[in-house]
Formats: sequence, C-alpha cells, structure tokens
Amino acid sequence: MDQQPWEWPDEEWQRRVGQVRAGRSLKPATWPGGARSAVALSFDSDHDTNELRDGGISIGRLSWGQYGTRVGIPRILDILRREQIPASFFVPAVAAKLYPDEQRRVIAEGHEIGLHGWIHELNSVLPEAIERDLHLRAADALEAITGTRPVGMRTPSWDFSPATLKIQRELGLIYDSSLMADDDPYELVENGEPTGIVELPVEWIRDDAPYLNMNRFQALRPYTPPPAVLDIFIREFDRAHADGGLFLLTMHPHVITYRSRIFILEDLIRHIKEKAAGSGGGVWFATHEQIARHVAQGLEASL
Amino acid sequence: MDQQPWEWPDEEWQRRVGQVRAGRSLKPATWPGGARSAVALSFDSDHDTNELRDGGISIGRLSWGQYGTRVGIPRILDILRREQIPASFFVPAVAAKLYPDEQRRVIAEGHEIGLHGWIHELNSVLPEAIERDLHLRAADALEAITGTRPVGMRTPSWDFSPATLKIQRELGLIYDSSLMADDDPYELVENGEPTGIVELPVEWIRDDAPYLNMNRFQALRPYTPPPAVLDIFIREFDRAHADGGLFLLTMHPHVITYRSRIFILEDLIRHIKEKAAGSGGGVWFATHEQIARHVAQGLEASL
Amino acid sequence: MDQQPWEWPDEEWQRRVGQVRAGRSLKPATWPGGARSAVALSFDSDHDTNELRDGGISIGRLSWGQYGTRVGIPRILDILRREQIPASFFVPAVAAKLYPDEQRRVIAEGHEIGLHGWIHELNSVLPEAIERDLHLRAADALEAITGTRPVGMRTPSWDFSPATLKIQRELGLIYDSSLMADDDPYELVENGEPTGIVELPVEWIRDDAPYLNMNRFQALRPYTPPPAVLDIFIREFDRAHADGGLFLLTMHPHVITYRSRIFILEDLIRHIKEKAAGSGGGVWFATHEQIARHVAQGLEASL
Amino acid sequence: MDQQPWEWPDEEWQRRVGQVRAGRSLKPATWPGGARSAVALSFDSDHDTNELRDGGISIGRLSWGQYGTRVGIPRILDILRREQIPASFFVPAVAAKLYPDEQRRVIAEGHEIGLHGWIHELNSVLPEAIERDLHLRAADALEAITGTRPVGMRTPSWDFSPATLKIQRELGLIYDSSLMADDDPYELVENGEPTGIVELPVEWIRDDAPYLNMNRFQALRPYTPPPAVLDIFIREFDRAHADGGLFLLTMHPHVITYRSRIFILEDLIRHIKEKAAGSGGGVWFATHEQIARHVAQGLEASL
Repeated sequence: MDQQPWEWPDEEWQRRVGQVRAGRSLKPATWPGGARSAVALSFDSDHDTNELRDGGISIGRLSWGQYGTRVGIPRILDILRREQIPASFFVPAVAAKLYPDEQRRVIAEGHEIGLHGWIHELNSVLPEAIERDLHLRAADALEAITGTRPVGMRTPSWDFSPATLKIQRELGLIYDSSLMADDDPYELVENGEPTGIVELPVEWIRDDAPYLNMNRFQALRPYTPPPAVLDIFIREFDRAHADGGLFLLTMHPHVITYRSRIFILEDLIRHIKEKAAGSGGGVWFATHEQIARHVAQGLEASL
Repeated sequence: MDQQPWEWPDEEWQRRVGQVRAGRSLKPATWPGGARSAVALSFDSDHDTNELRDGGISIGRLSWGQYGTRVGIPRILDILRREQIPASFFVPAVAAKLYPDEQRRVIAEGHEIGLHGWIHELNSVLPEAIERDLHLRAADALEAITGTRPVGMRTPSWDFSPATLKIQRELGLIYDSSLMADDDPYELVENGEPTGIVELPVEWIRDDAPYLNMNRFQALRPYTPPPAVLDIFIREFDRAHADGGLFLLTMHPHVITYRSRIFILEDLIRHIKEKAAGSGGGVWFATHEQIARHVAQGLEASL
Repeated sequence: MDQQPWEWPDEEWQRRVGQVRAGRSLKPATWPGGARSAVALSFDSDHDTNELRDGGISIGRLSWGQYGTRVGIPRILDILRREQIPASFFVPAVAAKLYPDEQRRVIAEGHEIGLHGWIHELNSVLPEAIERDLHLRAADALEAITGTRPVGMRTPSWDFSPATLKIQRELGLIYDSSLMADDDPYELVENGEPTGIVELPVEWIRDDAPYLNMNRFQALRPYTPPPAVLDIFIREFDRAHADGGLFLLTMHPHVITYRSRIFILEDLIRHIKEKAAGSGGGVWFATHEQIARHVAQGLEASL
Repeated sequence: MDQQPWEWPDEEWQRRVGQVRAGRSLKPATWPGGARSAVALSFDSDHDTNELRDGGISIGRLSWGQYGTRVGIPRILDILRREQIPASFFVPAVAAKLYPDEQRRVIAEGHEIGLHGWIHELNSVLPEAIERDLHLRAADALEAITGTRPVGMRTPSWDFSPATLKIQRELGLIYDSSLMADDDPYELVENGEPTGIVELPVEWIRDDAPYLNMNRFQALRPYTPPPAVLDIFIREFDRAHADGGLFLLTMHPHVITYRSRIFILEDLIRHIKEKAAGSGGGVWFATHEQIARHVAQGLEASL
C-alpha cells in the first residue's frame, strides 16, 4: 500500500471509488400536498463540542460554544415557531448531555433530532470498532434524553469513514445527510450493493460556516459579506424550486444567529414563502426524516 | 491525560466546560437616561507589541505598530472629541511605557484605559504564576503612567487561560471583556460559583481585524470590502437597539484608521445617532467601565 | 546546486528562465467568419481524481467528484447544446475510464477531449520517464474510449515540468493550454528553439476554482460572491473582444454547475452573444483544437 | 537571547523598537504648482524573480513572470504616456538583466527606476555583508543598463532588515519606500539619530497584490472583487487629497494589468483627474524621486 496513486492497478482506484456511491435518484415525481419543491432546514448544534474534540483547551472557544445554546438555539426556535416550520437538529451526544432541556424543547416543538457523533469526532481517523461504539452510545444518549431514537445521521464535519455506512445500516437508520454526489436525494450503494439508505445530500455551498466561520489560529475568517451569503442561498432555492427538487441547508447556532446574520435566515424564509405563493407551486417545509420517508417510496416503487 | 477526548469520562468534559461559564444575564431593564440601547466602543492600542510578542524581528511590522500611535490614536481621539463620545482603550503595558503621553491624553479626554496584558502575550501558554505577575505589573505600570488603576481587562487576542478569572478576582477588577457566550452582559461563573465579575462580551464579528488584517507570511489578507464591514457593524447595532441591548465594538488603531477605512467609524457613529434620534429611543454611549457599573446593579438586585 | 538563488551565476537563472518561454505571438489578424474575437470554453473533468491523487481516503470528497459526472457534465452539455457552442473537456485517464459513456457523449455532441494526465498527478514531482509513461498511457486510454486521439494537453493543476514540453512534442500534440505568459496565443520556445507548439494561455483569473473552491482541511473557502465572479469573466471577455483577441475560460463540473452558480455560465454566454450582436463584430466560439489550428497558420506565414 | 519577549528587560524592547523609527513628518506645507495633493504611482517589476528567488522550479510561475514583461509593462507604459503621468518602477537586478530593453524604455519615457534587490531576496534572512553586496551589485547593474544610478529603494516584499538603513546611507540614497509608520512622508531615525533619509510610506492597503494575488500551493486567492479594490484606492486618494497629503500606490505588472483589472488603474486616474479639476486644488503626479526631493526641503528648513 506504499504505492503512489499513479502506480495503482485499475482495481485499486475502482475499489476506493466503489466503497460508497450514489445509486438511484430518489427525486420524487411529486411532493406532499402538491408542492413544487421541498425545503429541509437543518442546524448542527455542536455547541462546545468542536473545542472539546480538539482538547477543550480554549476558554474563549468554549464560551463561543455556549453562545450556541444560550442565544442561538432560542433565537432559531422562536423563528421556526413564528414561521411554523419544522426543522432538523443534529446534536453530538456530549452537547445533548450538556444541554438536555434544549433537546427536549426541540422535540417538544415538533422538530427532529439526528445523530451527529459523540463529541464531534472525525470518523475517518478512528478504528471501526471505536466509531461503532461512539455512534451506538450517541444513539442511546439521545434516546434517553428525548425519548425518541434518531433515524438519521449527519457525520461530524461530514467526515464519512469507509465503515460509516455499515454502522448506519446496523443502527437501522433510514437516511444519511453527509455526502455530496447530487443536488437531490439518492440511494446509497455500498461496494456495488444498493442499501436502501436514503442520502439527503449536503454541500459546503449550502452551509453557513464556510463563508462566516472564524478560527483565530487558522486562516479562516468571515470574509464573505452576509448579504452575499443570503444571495447564494436564494439562488440555490430558486433553482431547486424550478427543478422540483430539494433545497437542503445546513446552519449552525453559533454561526447564523448573530444580530448581523440572523436576517439571512429570516429573509430566506420570507423569500421562499413569497416564491411559493407567487408561482402557484407551493413549498413543502419538512424535517429530514419526513423528506427521507417520502422519497424512500421511490425505493419500493422501483423494486 | 493522554486520553483522546472521545475516551474522556463525562466528568472530564463537564470539568473543562465548567471552568468559566456564563451565568445570570445582566442585560438591564433600562439604560441610563432612558436610552433604548447602549454603545461601547473600544480600541485595542497594541501598537508595536504584536510584533514584539513574536520576537520583534520585523522592522516593517514595528513601523506598522508605530502607525497606530502616530496616526491612528490621534485620528480616533479627534473623532471621539468631535462626536462627544467616551470610549475604552485596552493597552498592553509595554505599549503604554513606549507611549506614555498618548495614555495621558486618552485619560485626560475622558476615556477609560483597561488592562491588555504586558506585551500582548498569549495567556494560555503561560504558567499561572507568570500570567499573574505580568497582569500585576501591567496594572501597576498603567496606574503609574495615568494615575488611574484599571478596573477591567481585555485579554490579548482574547486568549483567556484557566487561571485568568482567578487573577482578575485577585486584582479586584469589576469586568472582563474577552469572552463570547452572549450578545449582552452576563455574570461570570467559575467552577459553578458566581463571581460578581461582569462579562462584556466581544465577538470576532464585532471586530475590525478579522475582515481587514494583513499578515504577509500567513494567509491573512484584507479581502472584505470596507463598505461590507460597515454594513455588518450597522446590522449588529440595529438589532442591539431593537433588543434594548448592548452594542460593543472592538477596533484597532493600526487597522481602522487608514484613509480608506476611517469612514467605517464615522459613518457608524452617524448611523447610530440618526437611529437614536429617529426612533425616539436614545442611545447611551459609555465606556466599558460605565457599562459594567450600570449592569452590575443587576447582581445586587437579584441577591 | 545547494547554492541559494542569490548566489547563482547569471547562467543559472538564465537557464531556468529559458527552459520554456513564450515566443512569437500567434494572435491572428482575423478570426474565421470575420469574427472580432474568439471564445474558448473549457471544462476540466477531474471528477474523483483530485481525491484519488491524494490517496483516495475521503468518502466525502469522492462523492463530490461523483457530482461532477452525475450532475455537472449533463448540466453543462445541455447548456452547450441549447446555445450551440462547442467546447473542450480535459479529462484525466482515470476519470475517462470511470465514466467512458460520458466521454463518448462529449465527443458525439461535437466537443473536444484533451489530455489532462493519468490521475491528476503533479508532473513536477515525477521523474521524466514516469511522466512520459503516464501521458502516453493517458493518450491511449482516451483514444480507446472515444475513438479520437487527443491533440492538446492541459497539465493537471497547470503543473508543467521541465520535461512536459519535450513529451508533448513526442506525442505530436499541436497545442498546450497550461501556461500564462500572454492573454493571447503564442508559440512555445524550448531552450531557445521555436517548437511549433501553440500555447493557448490559461490564467487563475479566468478559472472558477480560485474564487469558489472549498477544502475543509485547508483554508480554501468560496469567499467570492458568485456575481463578482461573473463580473470578472465579463470584463475579461469585453477587453478580449475590444482587442480582437482570445477569451479562454477554465471551469470545472464540480465547481460551476451548482444551482447557485450555473447562472455564471449562462449569463456569461448571454452577455457574449449580446455583445457580438451589438457591436457588429461577431464572436467565434470554438474548441481549443480549432483555435490552435487557426492560429497555427501564423507559424507558417512567418517562416 | 533565549528569553521570551515577556521576560525582556525594558531595554531590550526599547532597543528593538528604536532601530528604525519615524521621525519628523515631511508632509510639506505646499506641493509644486500649488497642487493640493501629490500622487506617486509605483510598479514593482518583479517578473520572474519571485519564482527564481524560491528556487526557479515552477515553469508555470516563470511564465506568469514573463507576462509581466511581455504584456504588463507595455500596457502600463501606454496608459502613462496617454495620461502624461510619470511613475516609478522598482526592479530587481535579475529582472533588469533579463529585460534590459524594458528598463531603457521606462527611463526613456521619463519614469524612474529604483532599487528592488538582486533577485527579490528577503533581506531579513541574510547576513549584513551579503545584503550589502547584493544591493551594491544591484545598483551597479541598474546603472549599467539604464545609464542612471538609482536614488531610492523599495525592499523586496518590504522586508527591511536591521542593516538595510545603514546600507541605504552608504549607497547615498535619498529615500526608502518600504515602511509604514505614517500616511505621509517622514524622516527615518536610526537608533535615535536622524538620518536625512526620506521615507515614502507604503501600505498593504495601497497595494494590488493582497487583494488579487494567487498562490496555488498557499491559501492565497484573488477573493476581493476588483471594483472593491478600486473603491479602496479611491477612498485612500480622496482623503489624501482632503488632507493635502500624499497618495502612494504600489502595483505589479503581473497583477494589475489583466483585462479584468486594468480598469482599476484607468478609472483611478480618471477619478483623480476629475477630483483635481473639480475641487480647484490640483494634483501633482510625480515620481518617488521627485516627491522625495520636494519633501526633503523640510529637512533643511527645520535645521
């Protein structure tokens, strides 16, 4: 395995590419209620776990994490309630254990909580057994706190290991939301075998962090003007609506909710509702679980 | 302690998170004079100390530091005097000793000077005894120069060590302004114990440096258009005003005062004053010390 | 060779500079059909090979590569067919072997496929014999799949080694498109000797990736607002048209085709066609091969 | 010298800061011809030397360097001739030796050529004797090519060593243009002693490269929209004009002259001329040497 990639026999790059692939498109012919497109808003409630995962040294970054639970989540939940929109929250187990009341409020207000690792660890650096143990314990922890067992996973940092899909199947999940092979939902294929697992694809383009994140000791800065971020999200939605597809957006309580940024979420929702009203074709706001269950009908239809 | 974070027992991440936490909100019911919101402008007068802290090798960066004292501070003080606005300046002791007349002018014109380390050192890499010694000597140096002992601290680079809060209490400070768990003031809690110390929270979003700083040998560049920086600051203020909260802004003499950037400060002040006049609810411009003393009434009220 | 560059005798930097140089300008007096300028659109169909070249570890980045073939290429080909524009696609052999039907569709629809390395390797780190072997095998692979042997090369990452030009001559190519010494085509000169090889110059300015690319574990983020990218491309075209020159643009299926970005390509084409119609001087849309064959007439004319 | 900066005795940081300081302001009471402000445009003609200085490995970056001489310089000289504006070109000796005709045209058209190192080396990593030898040989080389001995220096990468000022004095230069302690000209002070050397201060803000440069293997990208760069330069000029000061701008032939960027220079000149015509107070366009000789009258006046 010391071969350079350009020395690999064809079988080697075929094997690597084939581990996890996009299979059948699950873009549905119709969305519930005759809607023209679907909108799935998600929030990764990492809170303190990004800093804890890196060793938990920085008091400042831990305080930034606390902002997410203290200011960010309430601000988000208030908007969602006012707008009557369900959403999905992906929560590392350690964040859920730190803030169990937050999780219970999220569930009580009709939203979904999905798996997001134990402490926002990077799966691809872990042995399979440890990755499995962490996902299992995370599922148990979330269920113990909220009374509901998660049915979907977003891998932390979208870092999907060669073992992740196998573990998701063992956990009986119905969807993953960490991969990027399409704009619209598709079925995951593992080493050539269709799995029945729905992929609800993410993209860094449809994520607040790449544009707005800050890391003092890396060269990451919030260089993009916030109105330009809103413009990008609106363009993503507009084409999804025109295509009859899915607009899935990843946000973070510790990124999007600041006083100078929360307008991005508010104006985006206003734009979507105006578009939906104006075009005659409505929009279905749904949790990731609802999206996954709807598009999974395509799995059975084609069997 | 060679454990990976995902191997920690719960007590370990609980302990780390609990070292310094946001406690009671100190957002007041009312601001002095019936103002609807408060504005706290601050300037970190680092001057040559950023380069000295890194070893003092680069003549060019030392000249950049001199710009701060030679051009930046006078330009800022002239604006503040014209606009009749008090502000807070956080000054490393070495910068104060290099430019004592500057500090005396700052105090004479009614502004506050707060602690900002000895030579802009990173607290989190220092043993506690050295960190304590540097803060103590810095307080003595500032008092010797200005005749006034500082009552608040902004840690250099907002790098708050596990010992910083203890040292702040020993120094008898009334506030810190380095952490980020809320938009509005709160009480700091140390290992579960309320401290009576007021936190006036900062954010990289409300700082000129992330958008505009330059480091030749890192990948930091002033990529954000200056009008976009003004737009972000205006949005932060507008919501703070709507919320009846605090708008606290960190600036740097060697960043914000250039001929192409000083309009950001001027136009921001103009916007704030127009908003205050227009909405019927005024704005209280105050030093950090004044803000801290006002919101600290909330500590006693709730005891 | 342990000398520092400032210790080199003049012969050393002369030798290095002289390896590959821009010679005669091949900007033609006229373009076919009396067009005032020429437009050469190109797409580097890297797909999974960027990640494979780096070891093929990340499942997420492999899924991103699959987006290029699954969503990106069809979206591009649909636009080109609707607009009746021929283009050039540079395809690593491994990408072509993974997706042979895609290459056959590209050729069937009248476009060009050029060489782009074996697995998107960096030429400058390879021994000459290995670089030669990879280019030769890549040419054979592309020909086997499409029935057409490539006549031009774009080096992966525009990483042109001291041996690349020699290998291009051995392969009998008529053009390279990886270097940057002019806005308009020119002849490549090797150690003082004119080669007859046409250079169709690229520039990072006329590339979608610098503005919009993302790398989670580097500090690369899509900070530039997409409308600003369109503005840059339009400015490049407008002056090329005014100069009677060539506008050559490099894009990537996994960068430009997202729902929030594809308008860049669409609006750019609309702008070019409007300009062409409005100014009285038309525009020649052509493949790189067509451009190279046209400007190569300048080689003979001046002999 | 293994002391950490926070362990230094005061004498150590005083010594470091005092090596090279800004002394008396040389902002003149009036500019020639009664102009209200002065404009000094400069171009650093690095061409291939940035890549040669790094080892001269990349053929692609050498071709980029050739763009500077082949396309960039002629485009700049044409604009300057059309606009009747003199400017200063800072040229590494190796670039001058590679392209001697370019240097002779620059001088013949009334512009200035200043020192810019031997091969764009970093002065601060060189022993003093080597730095001196390179500057001396560079001065001889430029004089041999153009017939005129340079009277000013811009250090490559503005990397000014502790020995640079001493060498500049030995060379009999009248100005440096590499430091940043003011917006307007000042006298350089060496270890407390006024030197009579004029500093014409630069700033990264007034430089095209930070906003627009690209380095494939670093995280440097041209993220800033070109119109935003023009806006920054206009703001810098407007305040300089209002202040009666100097607007000094650093550009690079391999950065500013592309078809999508050259409008920045053209529109800036148009704006300056309109402003000068409109306000009643003219603008003096001058070379760095002319500026330095004019403001140096302030040195004598105050003796």
